[in-house]
Amino acid sequence: CIFAQKGEGQILLRVGGPGWLRHSTARLSPVGLRSPFLPASSWQFGVCCRTLHTGADRPEPSLAAAPDRLPFSRITQEDLAFFRKILPGRAITDTDLLESSNVDWLKSVRGSSEVLLRPQTTEEVSQILKYCNSHNLAVTPQGGNTGLVGGSVPVYDEVILSTALMNNILTFDSISGILTCQAGCVLENLSLYLEERDYIMPLDLGAKGSCHIGGNVATNAGGLRLLRYGSLHGTVLGLEVVLADGQVLDCLATLRKDNTGYDLKQLFIGSEGTLGVITAVSVLCPRKPKSVNVVFLGCETFEQLLKTFQLCRGMLGEILSAYEFLDSECMQLLNMHLKLPNPISDCPFYVVIETSGSDPTHDGEKLHNFLEEAMTSSLVTDGTVATEDSKIKALWSMRERITEALTHDGFNYKYDISLPVERIYQLVTDMREHLGGRAKRVVGYGHVGDGNLHLNITSPAKDPALLAAIEPFIYEWTASCQGSISAEHGLGLKKRNYIYYSKPRQAVALMGNIKAMLDPKGILNPYKTLPDNLK
Amino acid sequence: CIFAQKGEGQILLRVGGPGWLRHSTARLSPVGLRSPFLPASSWQFGVCCRTLHTGADRPEPSLAAAPDRLPFSRITQEDLAFFRKILPGRAITDTDLLESSNVDWLKSVRGSSEVLLRPQTTEEVSQILKYCNSHNLAVTPQGGNTGLVGGSVPVYDEVILSTALMNNILTFDSISGILTCQAGCVLENLSLYLEERDYIMPLDLGAKGSCHIGGNVATNAGGLRLLRYGSLHGTVLGLEVVLADGQVLDCLATLRKDNTGYDLKQLFIGSEGTLGVITAVSVLCPRKPKSVNVVFLGCETFEQLLKTFQLCRGMLGEILSAYEFLDSECMQLLNMHLKLPNPISDCPFYVVIETSGSDPTHDGEKLHNFLEEAMTSSLVTDGTVATEDSKIKALWSMRERITEALTHDGFNYKYDISLPVERIYQLVTDMREHLGGRAKRVVGYGHVGDGNLHLNITSPAKDPALLAAIEPFIYEWTASCQGSISAEHGLGLKKRNYIYYSKPRQAVALMGNIKAMLDPKGILNPYKTLPDNLK
Repeated sequence: CIFAQKGEGQILLRVGGPGWLRHSTARLSPVGLRSPFLPASSWQFGVCCRTLHTGADRPEPSLAAAPDRLPFSRITQEDLAFFRKILPGRAITDTDLLESSNVDWLKSVRGSSEVLLRPQTTEEVSQILKYCNSHNLAVTPQGGNTGLVGGSVPVYDEVILSTALMNNILTFDSISGILTCQAGCVLENLSLYLEERDYIMPLDLGAKGSCHIGGNVATNAGGLRLLRYGSLHGTVLGLEVVLADGQVLDCLATLRKDNTGYDLKQLFIGSEGTLGVITAVSVLCPRKPKSVNVVFLGCETFEQLLKTFQLCRGMLGEILSAYEFLDSECMQLLNMHLKLPNPISDCPFYVVIETSGSDPTHDGEKLHNFLEEAMTSSLVTDGTVATEDSKIKALWSMRERITEALTHDGFNYKYDISLPVERIYQLVTDMREHLGGRAKRVVGYGHVGDGNLHLNITSPAKDPALLAAIEPFIYEWTASCQGSISAEHGLGLKKRNYIYYSKPRQAVALMGNIKAMLDPKGILNPYKTLPDNLK
Repeated sequence: CIFAQKGEGQILLRVGGPGWLRHSTARLSPVGLRSPFLPASSWQFGVCCRTLHTGADRPEPSLAAAPDRLPFSRITQEDLAFFRKILPGRAITDTDLLESSNVDWLKSVRGSSEVLLRPQTTEEVSQILKYCNSHNLAVTPQGGNTGLVGGSVPVYDEVILSTALMNNILTFDSISGILTCQAGCVLENLSLYLEERDYIMPLDLGAKGSCHIGGNVATNAGGLRLLRYGSLHGTVLGLEVVLADGQVLDCLATLRKDNTGYDLKQLFIGSEGTLGVITAVSVLCPRKPKSVNVVFLGCETFEQLLKTFQLCRGMLGEILSAYEFLDSECMQLLNMHLKLPNPISDCPFYVVIETSGSDPTHDGEKLHNFLEEAMTSSLVTDGTVATEDSKIKALWSMRERITEALTHDGFNYKYDISLPVERIYQLVTDMREHLGGRAKRVVGYGHVGDGNLHLNITSPAKDPALLAAIEPFIYEWTASCQGSISAEHGLGLKKRNYIYYSKPRQAVALMGNIKAMLDPKGILNPYKTLPDNLK
């Protein structure tokens, strides 16, 4: 059940407000606090955790379970006094207030940190890390705590360093579109700020209402605009990072071009807080599109769906901003559990295409020409177009609400796989055949444009035998295609030991050397990203 | 005169064939072999170099001059026997054949390597490096040898490892547009291969007829498409790299998304062959545009030119692919030395705008609407549009032939600076004021869209007093705006010691640690990229 809580949860977040979020969280985590992600050595966490781990169905330790606590110091009154002195009123030790920072969004990993630090400045972050490094105290950097792989919460009693109060926009250049801000700015706030100035952020996530830009960069978040604007490795122009020993590394350039030495900031993009704490970000922002259209199409085969993708890349060209798919199993779930009617006639495969451009007339014409060609060449069998906001949202919900529909179908085994685009659906087909009648349902959907498949398997209840049939089959299949076992969610705590399915031993060893070079005591986000056998 | 030979030479390469290239090279290098970039310790290079360095005008050693030779082994007959055995017929020792690999394109740096190795496979590169590392032999990796900062040629007797015979395209996925190829593929060959398949490379350089994709990646080449498709940090999806000790690091992913651990390939992009030898590359290629237009406009002030840029980003949006500028001094040089007439009326500033898109009618309409708005709002005072190929080339030549025109104006002091876009021209104005009558001419042109200024100063002859007035003024000015002293050319040998103008000490120290980790003996491209005081 180790992947029961990850996957498309982020996308659900977009549908409703905070109330809905709490509701869906409960539904998304059927195993609740009995999750195997609660650290194996949970005896040290107090009564609550101890009790929870004595259940009869406590699973065998898996590769995803936490390793034993490393020999970091335990926090003392002297430590707390120091933190209270440098962060007056911002060194939180109240258990209730700590609760939401000790548990991840999926409620699948729970730490027992005794202090949450809320610095406001880079200098404060530097003082904290200098102190922790010299006192051998482990630190978990935390942004919006919206990650899905247990990367943003303590595993044991690590000090939590939150960027929540580092939420100032520093500069915005309306000519170049370059924004610099502190790491704790909430993505949606940045988007709103930019939209008033006719720009947008180059990334958009389901969790945008709570995730921090620093966390986005630290996890190399993908999201809904990657097809169009590329990854953060291209759009992030500069970072300010505090290293484990408190040194401030200023790579906060606001330049599109800079070839003076190695591009150090790249190391920290996607390193999940294990190499340094990102305190400020500069990012290149695209202009806000003046026109957005969404199309929902049906295809008879996945081959036709891929041919449609090719046609659409050619004919929609520079205005294509999303090409997502779902299969007929997804549609059945949407119909059955959410009463969402199919907007077109029944087909084996469905596509959601979004365009965004600078001229509504031109975009409409391009779309019309593409649709005519796709229909007359029989690549698609049916379709509908939305240009007004409410219908656009309705069509997008056919893609965005699949995760929600899945949770109503039983226990979910969720996978987030990157593959060569032409192999995406073969994995679903092979998995279906491989599992035979053992699974209730095997469904596939995801970002065709990015080669990113969300494969989900449902079962009436948690089923260790089913899990054993799924894994390592899925990882081996993915590895055989040089795919990635984590397309956009990172490794965090949960997937750290599966890294070898996607990276060769030399590469992982080099990652270990980089970690040792930048954080020799290993205080930064321990137990995350790198496999246990490196330690 | 240390910047006399760098700058826009690459762009000239686009104009003609190999014969023209040789001609322009001669014109571009007025100081020829008397360049101060010939290593200070050139006595060991043989008669030719010794003679050249006894001239009365031999300059004082500058920060750009080569440091003393490091204590690497000298090549022996046993070494040569080994190389001949593993590379039959491909270990070149003939002096004449070695000549072109020992000298850079600008003829400004000359090494004295005694052997040029031409491996065909990654395994051969691995064997070479393993041997050189264990025998303490220094190695200079070399692609097309088109660099402008002395990064691609030996400084002393380093073994030259050429990627010229590693020129196979490995795979191309026509659905995703992902190309993988060996590092020695010539950029133009890749472009031709892709254009037949309706794709283009995401980068385009003046030197495309001879530069290698591995060298492009190693130097993080910018070029003419960066405004549209972004930097190689975003478009390169994977690399295969041989490390100093011969280990093959396989990060040759062909995935748009992969968040499994640190993104190691990023380290090698722009590291100028000092951290490893790139042997294969995978790159995400855009679709070939169906329509290209070029506009040439005149503006009264640089502020209007920037406002026009903003307007054009808004109205041309997704089809904008270049926004370049030149000042009236450039125009005078084009008129005077190349007899190129001004296509519009005289103005203080000129802009070249290129659009590329998927629909000629739509692109034409967007351009028409933009031009109407720019004219009626008096942002631009005059302009002309080209849609047919010959006129497009003629307009582009007003931008591309500035370097050539400059060489006719006297001795050139050339700078390639990255700045916040709104400061670009202030540097030209300030430099003009600062130099007063000491310079013949101070001209500015470059990539407004990328914030990349080419600042050139001409003088009747080489003038050490003028140079002393230019430097460090220009570096300090750039540093005061958090600019980059090398926007796209890298540091190589020539600029390595100027790195501190653009990078803080901690960052440079960390670069040194990375170098020491990956190449503990320092055999890979010594004397390049990192400043001498790190050694």
